Amino acid sequence: MRTVAQNAELALLLEVAGTPKPGNVDRHRDHDDLRFEHFLAGAVGARGGLDAAAAGEPLGESFRRAVEGMSEQRGGNTQFGALLLQMPLVAAAGADDRDLSPGGAAAVVESTTVADAANFYRAFEAVDVAVDDPPEEMAALDVRRGSDAVPALEDRGLTLADIMARSADRDGVAREWVEGFERTFGAAESIESGDPERPVADRAADAFLELLAAEVDTFVVTQHDRAAAERATERARAALDGDIDPEDLAEEFVAEGINPGTTADTVAAALFVALERGLEV
Amino acid sequence: MRTVAQNAELALLLEVAGTPKPGNVDRHRDHDDLRFEHFLAGAVGARGGLDAAAAGEPLGESFRRAVEGMSEQRGGNTQFGALLLQMPLVAAAGADDRDLSPGGAAAVVESTTVADAANFYRAFEAVDVAVDDPPEEMAALDVRRGSDAVPALEDRGLTLADIMARSADRDGVAREWVEGFERTFGAAESIESGDPERPVADRAADAFLELLAAEVDTFVVTQHDRAAAERATERARAALDGDIDPEDLAEEFVAEGINPGTTADTVAAALFVALERGLEV
Repeated sequence: MRTVAQNAELALLLEVAGTPKPGNVDRHRDHDDLRFEHFLAGAVGARGGLDAAAAGEPLGESFRRAVEGMSEQRGGNTQFGALLLQMPLVAAAGADDRDLSPGGAAAVVESTTVADAANFYRAFEAVDVAVDDPPEEMAALDVRRGSDAVPALEDRGLTLADIMARSADRDGVAREWVEGFERTFGAAESIESGDPERPVADRAADAFLELLAAEVDTFVVTQHDRAAAERATERARAALDGDIDPEDLAEEFVAEGINPGTTADTVAAALFVALERGLEV
Repeated sequence: MRTVAQNAELALLLEVAGTPKPGNVDRHRDHDDLRFEHFLAGAVGARGGLDAAAAGEPLGESFRRAVEGMSEQRGGNTQFGALLLQMPLVAAAGADDRDLSPGGAAAVVESTTVADAANFYRAFEAVDVAVDDPPEEMAALDVRRGSDAVPALEDRGLTLADIMARSADRDGVAREWVEGFERTFGAAESIESGDPERPVADRAADAFLELLAAEVDTFVVTQHDRAAAERATERARAALDGDIDPEDLAEEFVAEGINPGTTADTVAAALFVALERGLEV
């Protein structure tokens, strides 16, 4: 039987394999400097940190290790958000009193410490992550400052859960941390309830479109603006309604530089939940 | 830095991602019941056995563990041959006196025991592997007998190296074991000397074609016959010479049910060697 960390790694691989996943690297599409094989290496490299999280080691340190390992390829940031979203779920699934549920994951989030927050910040030193400027009162806590922000964190006594709460209004991954992983568990159910004969990666691509059609992708907001993200969601809805072929939408998003990365992160976390609950590949 | 076992796992993933790899599952092609995602799960599942081999645990037991883990997906045999070819290389790379060279790998082969052979046989119980009928005097040692063949092995005192030597005339993986992994190291050099801007998986696909053009694939001999295998090699040579588009050859092989699996196994082992020697992804 695959271990908890193996399921997390496999989820990352199945996520990137799923196609069409408009705007993202997938089995059929590379970006210029960010290619399918970078995601393969990223998933394999993240494994040590996933093992640590499943073994109950501190969440922030596990995350930092996963990101450092993920970064050992030439594509840059492949799975930062996916790993951040998976971490509390992996910890919940790996715990002795295993509780892979929204409540169990929320309990992991609640238990995070200031040290976890510090390691979260340190993880940003391993890889360039696209983020918005923080609100002015948060400037000292800009994640791009990496470990330079740690004294400010410690002064204010902020845990990783506190940091996520402060970003939840503009970052979809942070929002999942705060809101009990509602979208993640919903997408897991969607994948699980798909045609069992349909490849898992294809069911994951379906879930991607459903998620994007339901809610704007905050990574698109960061890279472009809210209008672009709202338009991307409208287009995803059109694809879901059969008004545009998802393959054509994929070409359209690539041409426009639309990359719904947070939605992909959610699918990776959902695949992990589904695999842990027995989804067969 | 990725561990030895992580590089072996990543090599399996890069191998299946490389395209076009005429006749095999690759990033762009599935077979009906054997799909890309089965190879992803196979590579992840094999990891425990790869970890064991890198840590110096007995080779046969490590292989059996790798195959059992690999088999936890619905596609059946995805990487049996690739793992068998990787094992001595992984052990050589993981040893305290690390010697990832033809000589180092040959020394590992030489050191195998009857117990390693027994676990090799047991590995056949985890998954259906296409093999030829053995010569009559070897009937008691038919691998398809699995652990039922172990008493015969023990009676004759055959090590895993002995078993490989007895199959080298009809199995390309066994031949590599016997002949110092000559093709594997040659293909590793070919991948390493490719254009560094060209994706690693594409360079691996190039190496696949070169290998197939140079020598018949014994898996094709097993599945069809020698004439079919010789014809496949001629066609690969034509593709290499530019007389046929490799993408068209891929369609041709799929239509004919030609699946040069042993050549793919060699590429997976070659990718491992190249990654261990510093190939960047």
